[in-house]
Amino acid sequence: MAKKIKVIQFGLGAMGSEMAKIVLKKRDLELVGAIVRREEQNGKDIGDLIGLKKKTGIKAYTNPKELYKKVKADVMLHAAVSYAPLVWKQIRPAVESGINVITIAEEMGYPYIKYPKICKEINRVAKRKGVRVLGSGINPGFAMDLLPVLISGICEHVDSIRVIRVIDFSPFGQAIQNNIGIGMNESEFKKKIKEGKLPLHIGLPESSSMVAAAFGWKIDKIVETREPVIANKHIHVPGYKHVPKGKVAGFNHRCFAYSKGRKVITLEELGRVDPNEDYKNTIIINGKPRITEVMNVPTGKITTTSHAVNLIPAVLKANPGLLTMLDLTPAPALPLK
Amino acid sequence: MAKKIKVIQFGLGAMGSEMAKIVLKKRDLELVGAIVRREEQNGKDIGDLIGLKKKTGIKAYTNPKELYKKVKADVMLHAAVSYAPLVWKQIRPAVESGINVITIAEEMGYPYIKYPKICKEINRVAKRKGVRVLGSGINPGFAMDLLPVLISGICEHVDSIRVIRVIDFSPFGQAIQNNIGIGMNESEFKKKIKEGKLPLHIGLPESSSMVAAAFGWKIDKIVETREPVIANKHIHVPGYKHVPKGKVAGFNHRCFAYSKGRKVITLEELGRVDPNEDYKNTIIINGKPRITEVMNVPTGKITTTSHAVNLIPAVLKANPGLLTMLDLTPAPALPLK
Repeated sequence: MAKKIKVIQFGLGAMGSEMAKIVLKKRDLELVGAIVRREEQNGKDIGDLIGLKKKTGIKAYTNPKELYKKVKADVMLHAAVSYAPLVWKQIRPAVESGINVITIAEEMGYPYIKYPKICKEINRVAKRKGVRVLGSGINPGFAMDLLPVLISGICEHVDSIRVIRVIDFSPFGQAIQNNIGIGMNESEFKKKIKEGKLPLHIGLPESSSMVAAAFGWKIDKIVETREPVIANKHIHVPGYKHVPKGKVAGFNHRCFAYSKGRKVITLEELGRVDPNEDYKNTIIINGKPRITEVMNVPTGKITTTSHAVNLIPAVLKANPGLLTMLDLTPAPALPLK
Repeated sequence: MAKKIKVIQFGLGAMGSEMAKIVLKKRDLELVGAIVRREEQNGKDIGDLIGLKKKTGIKAYTNPKELYKKVKADVMLHAAVSYAPLVWKQIRPAVESGINVITIAEEMGYPYIKYPKICKEINRVAKRKGVRVLGSGINPGFAMDLLPVLISGICEHVDSIRVIRVIDFSPFGQAIQNNIGIGMNESEFKKKIKEGKLPLHIGLPESSSMVAAAFGWKIDKIVETREPVIANKHIHVPGYKHVPKGKVAGFNHRCFAYSKGRKVITLEELGRVDPNEDYKNTIIINGKPRITEVMNVPTGKITTTSHAVNLIPAVLKANPGLLTMLDLTPAPALPLK
């Protein structure tokens, strides 16, 4: 790449700060600005906001349109909210300004089922402006959908897919911790689940839909179950807090997708904060042949944030419009400076 | 897909026959002819040639040009030879006839380093005709190159890659068995290695080059080592033959790629015919974070042949020219009829 790709970072929370740091390390990328919510951060140097020890000379803005006019950015990385309608509200001015967008918002991983109308609109505006909009994190977007789909390519056929992901939630920020009920009483957890106030993992129906789309499976029904995991001893969570024995220390969130009455996709997101847990991602492809795949990878923010950054060249190469990971060529780790 | 994709099978050996069978099972593909070498097979029904119990109504031809004129094929699957110059000689008439080609020839997995001139020519002719030419099997093309490259996308950076593939050679045909020296004396094996008469696995430098290209690593040196594995007991190979104690029962074929004096890629192809072996593919990505991935998959011809067939839609979607797996969007297992 002769010319560096100019990047804006939307959101400098736990994930956004990490993404900005990674962009700053990459040989072929140039961070040109950030968008923040809090007025007191307006005009501040990004280096100060993301905890670097030096100034970057690059500033944060509360007014996105001001930044879009000021710099001629190629792509914006978005890490601020999880739900598609709010994402579209936040990124639309960028798309209208001809800037490609990669968001880690979970619902944008495969928004077609839940938000067909919004998808149509994003697609229309993106195509008109000749830019791409992609939603992808590590999950949805990689571990439970792209990876099994890709591996299935070496099978003569696939009957069903199961993915079990034991994921370490201790490195994530407070917003995500609140979503999973760590430290709660079991009764409180279950009450909140009933009231729909604990979404736990967001994105399992999205991943299921992406897998089904890849295989040409028509899904009749998607069922989700959410259960607490209770600490059977006192757990010390590094850098976070303690979970006393008897309190909620994690969750089992499962999603089952049926096609013609047959269970074809099982996704199990098993969230934990226990440092002694065996964190891994297991894929079972029931087909010809049967394939099992186990990936050991620290499931902290480094993977989701790195992935979003590494996707940039593959996204820029794709056809304009609203994209999913199924539309992209492989996106390897980009070289450092 | 409204219209079926018309497929020609070039070669009906052990691999080619399997590919033809898989094409016949797929909902969106239509087998329209095969190309064979032996005159006595000319005009024969493919069903008889690949061991089906029924006629297919589709014929095999020894004269490719006759077939290309007769049917308007979209793509040709090629499984006949391993080396790029011979592949190009065999597939050129198809490309000239406007037919896309997917070959499982190992050297075509990443031919740019060894055959820059031929690559230029293939690329030129393919682009002129608006068709794609892709070389890919399970290896090179998937297990040791595409898969680690794809997984690396969730890393902030990668320092080095190691892939160890313990592969079961017992299901492969005689041509491939001859290449790996099964049943030989140790001295005979070593002599043939020295004389360059036992290539063992073909494609490790190709896989290394593909990985290096994906990461933007400049490779200074590629070193290959080839060692026999001697049976320490009598081995019964199902459907094949016996390997007496003391004879060659496999090989360790390793490939090391260096960049700026540092070993950055290690590929280990450990070929065996022992049914008691633990066959698996292990990927180690040394980077941030460190990732290990283990895939258990029977390494017989079903995976390479299925993969070639499943690639068809992704290849047809790509830009015309000579392609590698790095140019393709994900290619899931295609639905059966």
